[in-house]
Amino acid sequence: MKDVAARAGVGLKTVSRVVNEEPGVTPDTAARVQAAIDALGFRRNDSARLLRTRRTASVGLVLEDLADPFYASLSRAVEDVARAHGALLFTGSSTENPRREQELVLAFCARRVDGLVVVPAGDDHRYLVPEIDAGVATVFVDRPAGRIDADVVLTDNAGGTRAGVAHLIAHGHRRIGFIGDQPGIHTAAERLRGYREAMADAGIDVRPQWYAMGPTTPQRVQAVLASMLSGPEPVTALLAGNNRVTVTAVRVLSGRPEPVALVGFDDFELADLLDPPVTVVAQDAPGLGRTAAQMLFRRLDGAATGTSRVELPARLIPRGSGEIPPSS
Amino acid sequence: MKDVAARAGVGLKTVSRVVNEEPGVTPDTAARVQAAIDALGFRRNDSARLLRTRRTASVGLVLEDLADPFYASLSRAVEDVARAHGALLFTGSSTENPRREQELVLAFCARRVDGLVVVPAGDDHRYLVPEIDAGVATVFVDRPAGRIDADVVLTDNAGGTRAGVAHLIAHGHRRIGFIGDQPGIHTAAERLRGYREAMADAGIDVRPQWYAMGPTTPQRVQAVLASMLSGPEPVTALLAGNNRVTVTAVRVLSGRPEPVALVGFDDFELADLLDPPVTVVAQDAPGLGRTAAQMLFRRLDGAATGTSRVELPARLIPRGSGEIPPSS
Repeated sequence: MKDVAARAGVGLKTVSRVVNEEPGVTPDTAARVQAAIDALGFRRNDSARLLRTRRTASVGLVLEDLADPFYASLSRAVEDVARAHGALLFTGSSTENPRREQELVLAFCARRVDGLVVVPAGDDHRYLVPEIDAGVATVFVDRPAGRIDADVVLTDNAGGTRAGVAHLIAHGHRRIGFIGDQPGIHTAAERLRGYREAMADAGIDVRPQWYAMGPTTPQRVQAVLASMLSGPEPVTALLAGNNRVTVTAVRVLSGRPEPVALVGFDDFELADLLDPPVTVVAQDAPGLGRTAAQMLFRRLDGAATGTSRVELPARLIPRGSGEIPPSS
Repeated sequence: MKDVAARAGVGLKTVSRVVNEEPGVTPDTAARVQAAIDALGFRRNDSARLLRTRRTASVGLVLEDLADPFYASLSRAVEDVARAHGALLFTGSSTENPRREQELVLAFCARRVDGLVVVPAGDDHRYLVPEIDAGVATVFVDRPAGRIDADVVLTDNAGGTRAGVAHLIAHGHRRIGFIGDQPGIHTAAERLRGYREAMADAGIDVRPQWYAMGPTTPQRVQAVLASMLSGPEPVTALLAGNNRVTVTAVRVLSGRPEPVALVGFDDFELADLLDPPVTVVAQDAPGLGRTAAQMLFRRLDGAATGTSRVELPARLIPRGSGEIPPSS
């Protein structure tokens, strides 16, 4: 900026006025400044922008895995809201690693993002307090913050799972399995709670071999499901705790002679064209992203007071796999 | 930083040494600086980093749609390479709009990204020349740059489509349809070229009603496919030009009584569990992202000379739908 000012023979303030399209500069002067800018290849940078508005018009989004279709939809919704507010988006995948979550969050803060949308991997977010105090608007989504009070947008995970399990019970099942993600993950724990509640509501005594929590790799889900389907009290139905589990379960069940009922948590593309079509409890992934981002910008606009917790409903979509009766 | 220096009673250089973990500071002084930093909530920001390394350790990724599974995989691969180089990722969806692509690219440059990975929406990238001259490393991926010489990583789109169409011809088809994306998109044009070449190689005269190029919305693909499947010379097989087209084609074909052969360009989750399982020409989406990002960091390391063009092969995966013989 100094070089531009020197070359155009004007003060720094005049250059700033031209760059920011503010009034008070004659057309002649503006043209001279523009010529100097063009000649020097001047690019308005972060520092100039910071001085002007104290905002960087950027938002950091931390999620589990950008390649997961659920998070890809959520990200796109956050991006669309950010765009409507003229903000750019940093994205980063925590890969379910709390240390990586913290590294990403603090790296985004070091770039002076105006706000953060975080799908937390960890359960202690006190490290964020200095950033929030410094003015970084922060909204958690999909899972709540740990040990701090912060805005959060969730799905009704327990209620959705309860509805899915009750649906299987209504179709005659009693030996119902549940395969969930790692128990430290809020959504996984909530869905397990919903499963237990629905079973308890129906007076069914849950056997320990009917549910399993852990990483949702295909290898593990295959092994766990094979074990649930064997033994003296095999399950006749399965509630798959997320889209990764469902995809593997569809694969395993398609290779077995006896039909096993299946309800998946999370909808997925082409679920309706599989044989049988897959009944799901659908989350609103774009809705989660959109609501969280809108909450973030309301906070940045100074329109938020206190912290908010929003819970979006999950919706049971019967398609066939969840309506299979128990095999005798 | 000045406030920290004043509070700790040291010079700016000493604060800088402590922040950047450089030698030449006594433990006592370092502790005093750290206390001042903690007291003031000092956060190392872009400007300090810029002064230090002239790098921002950030990369901008512009693609068509973050929610598309193909681009979601590509993004994750770019993120992984960026992470290995200590860099953060800005992401943005152009939604196939050249003006939006340019806005995103220039906004990322205004944040002083070190480099750009671009899936171009437009066909004229001369607007990028001043940025590239200013030192922004730039690699195009999936589609080449327009009107400038730049690094690019592509799939062998024409070759892959040729192999897919030849496969259908080998299974007895002659009336083969092709539905592609908008003809201005490089990959769409290349795949159409592959289709034409394979048909010409087999001595088949392509009828104008057998191919269609345009937006890949479900509505349009449904209408176009219905028209190809009717009339005096209906197609008996289809090459679907990308994963969006394939998904709609699977849906349309599953509702028809007569079997129609299908080969899709791009693999997709659960393709092998559909009935019939879907034969595809698979691209290596993570490979495209990884190769482009590696090329970018080689350039940033000063190890690149001239510009490079890398073409990754596409791979035919026969699964069933592409091996259906023509209905008589």
